Amino acid sequence: MSDAWQECMDHCVEVARKAGKMIREALQEEIDVMQKSSPVDLVTETDQRVEQLIISSIKEKYPTHSFIGEESVAAGAPSVLTDNPTWIIDPIDGTTNFVHRFPFVSVSIGFAVNKEVEFGIVYSCIEDKMYTARKGKGAFCNGAPIKVSGQEDISQALVLAEMGFKKDPDHFKTMLANIKTILTIPVHGIRSPGSAAINMCLVACGSADAYYHMGIHCWDMAGGAAVVTEAGGVIMDISGGPFDLMSRRLIVASSRAIAQRIAKEITEFHVGRDDTE
Amino acid sequence: MSDAWQECMDHCVEVARKAGKMIREALQEEIDVMQKSSPVDLVTETDQRVEQLIISSIKEKYPTHSFIGEESVAAGAPSVLTDNPTWIIDPIDGTTNFVHRFPFVSVSIGFAVNKEVEFGIVYSCIEDKMYTARKGKGAFCNGAPIKVSGQEDISQALVLAEMGFKKDPDHFKTMLANIKTILTIPVHGIRSPGSAAINMCLVACGSADAYYHMGIHCWDMAGGAAVVTEAGGVIMDISGGPFDLMSRRLIVASSRAIAQRIAKEITEFHVGRDDTE
Repeated sequence: MSDAWQECMDHCVEVARKAGKMIREALQEEIDVMQKSSPVDLVTETDQRVEQLIISSIKEKYPTHSFIGEESVAAGAPSVLTDNPTWIIDPIDGTTNFVHRFPFVSVSIGFAVNKEVEFGIVYSCIEDKMYTARKGKGAFCNGAPIKVSGQEDISQALVLAEMGFKKDPDHFKTMLANIKTILTIPVHGIRSPGSAAINMCLVACGSADAYYHMGIHCWDMAGGAAVVTEAGGVIMDISGGPFDLMSRRLIVASSRAIAQRIAKEITEFHVGRDDTE
Repeated sequence: MSDAWQECMDHCVEVARKAGKMIREALQEEIDVMQKSSPVDLVTETDQRVEQLIISSIKEKYPTHSFIGEESVAAGAPSVLTDNPTWIIDPIDGTTNFVHRFPFVSVSIGFAVNKEVEFGIVYSCIEDKMYTARKGKGAFCNGAPIKVSGQEDISQALVLAEMGFKKDPDHFKTMLANIKTILTIPVHGIRSPGSAAINMCLVACGSADAYYHMGIHCWDMAGGAAVVTEAGGVIMDISGGPFDLMSRRLIVASSRAIAQRIAKEITEFHVGRDDTE
């Protein structure tokens, strides 16, 4: 069975590269459109087009496989992880960045079998960095092996965090309070690049030491989860418990010590699961 | 005289490229050092080495010119802008990023005559992006013209902000309150890349719509000020008044409307000037 998954992974890298090219072309061609009209339509349209490209290309080769894609779920498809080989797809991770041509935009694809991620890829398509990882085989960026910083001392850490407006006033307040708490430890700094999948890869390649997020989706995490794990990173739930792909909660770090410290410091707010409702 | 400044600018680009190469080599060679010992020594040592390279190379050609360099000032040199042609240098902008190999690290050089910036360059040396601008001649990235987004509607804006721990509790509280205020407008998002000079260039090339900072230094701003101004951006003081290179206060934006709105929304805290004390 092992070789079959390798073939899937090779196909995955190929289709992610095509998807990234489509995203770059959309950015080039439609700058005028974005500046003159609402950019929301463009991003939705490109998001859907890229997801269709990815899913149709995979379905053709693997017609029995399952899919969880951001846009398909938005259109009403179920978001339930079964034991069947399942492709978990975010066609454009970092849609706000995409709208602004802020240089962190990625295609994220994870592949799970028996509910475990078998391989993952994140293609940071403006930077042209292809992050790949297969269970037990290490993590790579453009073919070169990558590993986490190994940092164990949180006071030496660069931490990535999501920082957006939240309609729920309690969530918003808690998010800001968490930023304050983390900075006060103190850490070296907080950075906010705006793409969850790329954030995970920045931890994987040692450019940052931790990243935490509540309200993230499985398609934001599946690809990066494989990359950061295979790069020697630690992945866990916000509570400090085991990572759950469908929980919408994530801590990744260069070491268990840092991940656990973040779990201890931050205050949770409630986010629903991806596989209920 | 005009041609003389062009010659200075050509020399500046050349020396910035050499400096960027030195920074990249330091990052490559000394990763082990950074992970095993305190990274502070490495960054200080590289910072000083790069500034010496830049200043000695310029002094050789222009022995009568003045210099304001981050490391020279740290070592006791005066930080006063006179009418004499003056090179204002940050050898490594984004030192925390440098320590972590977070991919936004730059060499920033501004050149002022009669206290006005005549040209500026920012070399984002990990990305290999050379931003250049000369007064009245436009702004460029790797030779291609760049311009700001032109966005006038702050609710469509991507805003860059500095987000670090501050020892003064009032400053820290105000910084966090400002983040909350800006997000609540609402804007599309806040990003925090961690290099002031690159932040200015991200606004200059339309990847972000605004950036504000209190506590920044003249060497962080001089290069980027030329780039963002020549790209059609607006630069002003935190209060909404005229920009003052030595004031340690900055707003840059894609339009006057957005810059003024940020000036109106944020609360100031006191920062000393670069040219007093």
